[in-house]
Amino acid sequence: MTLSARNRLSGTVESLEIGENTAEVQVELRDGETVTAVITANSAERLDLSEGDSVDAIVKATDVMVDA
Amino acid sequence: MTLSARNRLSGTVESLEIGENTAEVQVELRDGETVTAVITANSAERLDLSEGDSVDAIVKATDVMVDA
Amino acid sequence: MTLSARNRLSGTVESLEIGENTAEVQVELRDGETVTAVITANSAERLDLSEGDSVDAIVKATDVMVDA
Amino acid sequence: MTLSARNRLSGTVESLEIGENTAEVQVELRDGETVTAVITANSAERLDLSEGDSVDAIVKATDVMVDA
Amino acid sequence: MTLSARNRLSGTVESLEIGENTAEVQVELRDGETVTAVITANSAERLDLSEGDSVDAIVKATDVMVDA
Amino acid sequence: MTLSARNRLSGTVESLEIGENTAEVQVELRDGETVTAVITANSAERLDLSEGDSVDAIVKATDVMVDA
Repeated sequence: MTLSARNRLSGTVESLEIGENTAEVQVELRDGETVTAVITANSAERLDLSEGDSVDAIVKATDVMVDA
Repeated sequence: MTLSARNRLSGTVESLEIGENTAEVQVELRDGETVTAVITANSAERLDLSEGDSVDAIVKATDVMVDA
Repeated sequence: MTLSARNRLSGTVESLEIGENTAEVQVELRDGETVTAVITANSAERLDLSEGDSVDAIVKATDVMVDA
Repeated sequence: MTLSARNRLSGTVESLEIGENTAEVQVELRDGETVTAVITANSAERLDLSEGDSVDAIVKATDVMVDA
Repeated sequence: MTLSARNRLSGTVESLEIGENTAEVQVELRDGETVTAVITANSAERLDLSEGDSVDAIVKATDVMVDA
Repeated sequence: MTLSARNRLSGTVESLEIGENTAEVQVELRDGETVTAVITANSAERLDLSEGDSVDAIVKATDVMVDA
């Protein structure tokens, strides 16, 4: 299936901190840049995430701001 | 000033389409990967964006999803 | 792959209005209830949506509000 | 009053987990499908939510993605 | 009913621009400060908005960023 | 630099609660009205926020709903 969210950045789970409510996932992109995702702790467990996993960081185009 | 939104990806405006209500901004990151932002047409004019401009694509960590 | 966004509601494209910038997609759920998605016109074309298609309406848990 | 957010799905609080910062609310819709909302713990207390309450799950159309 | 979204700022519709897809609503708050909302054109019609109307601008706490 | 997010409301940190995952920041605007921001605990530490600080509360126009 194809998702309407436009941005799909491939990378690897560099670090993963699962707290009581939320989980902070650092995704290292191919060029070494890091994108941080904060998802619910339940979702982190449901996805069975571990450091080193290949993942995509997904962002809707309308959630991207521009600073110029 | 420092913004609470966590992700700041530096790049260049690769393409810019300003429509009646919204503007679609393709930001090329350093490694050639492209991030798409859809902002309001007013904001695109207020930022006086042009192709080739250096910009940052900014995303809140809670707006980043993970696909694993 | 599994997406961190928690809510995945299966349904059918009941109606589709593609405007200059955005597209309005009415998704009829199994019980007849309708969910409206507004995505970018580009995404509607990229997904090659048509009325009658089976689709999932996806919503992050943090984007759901409660009115009580 | 009428809210600009387009989607209003009626249901019942099936389960409620209030953590330190956030609260996870499972709303069972009429057809048995469940929608998960993650709101702040403060909001859950302010709304005085309990299991069995009739509530509406509210989502802006621009926060609904389509997977096709 | 009470909505989980935390911020409810009362004001008056100072200006209203309804485009093909979206509508831009300038809400003047009590102290003269202005908040801009961009909602879908359909929602603006459904709310039957006009300049001078008393309205509330509503924002989820998780959608507010801090610049310090 | 100028950010595409349209709403920038100046104020002062009235209260700050940093929890395990998230931080709740009450920003008092000039007219005494209060806006609540919920950001990640990491961001609150990164911004080195304290009560009494001058800050701006920033909201994208597309994240503002209207209740009429």
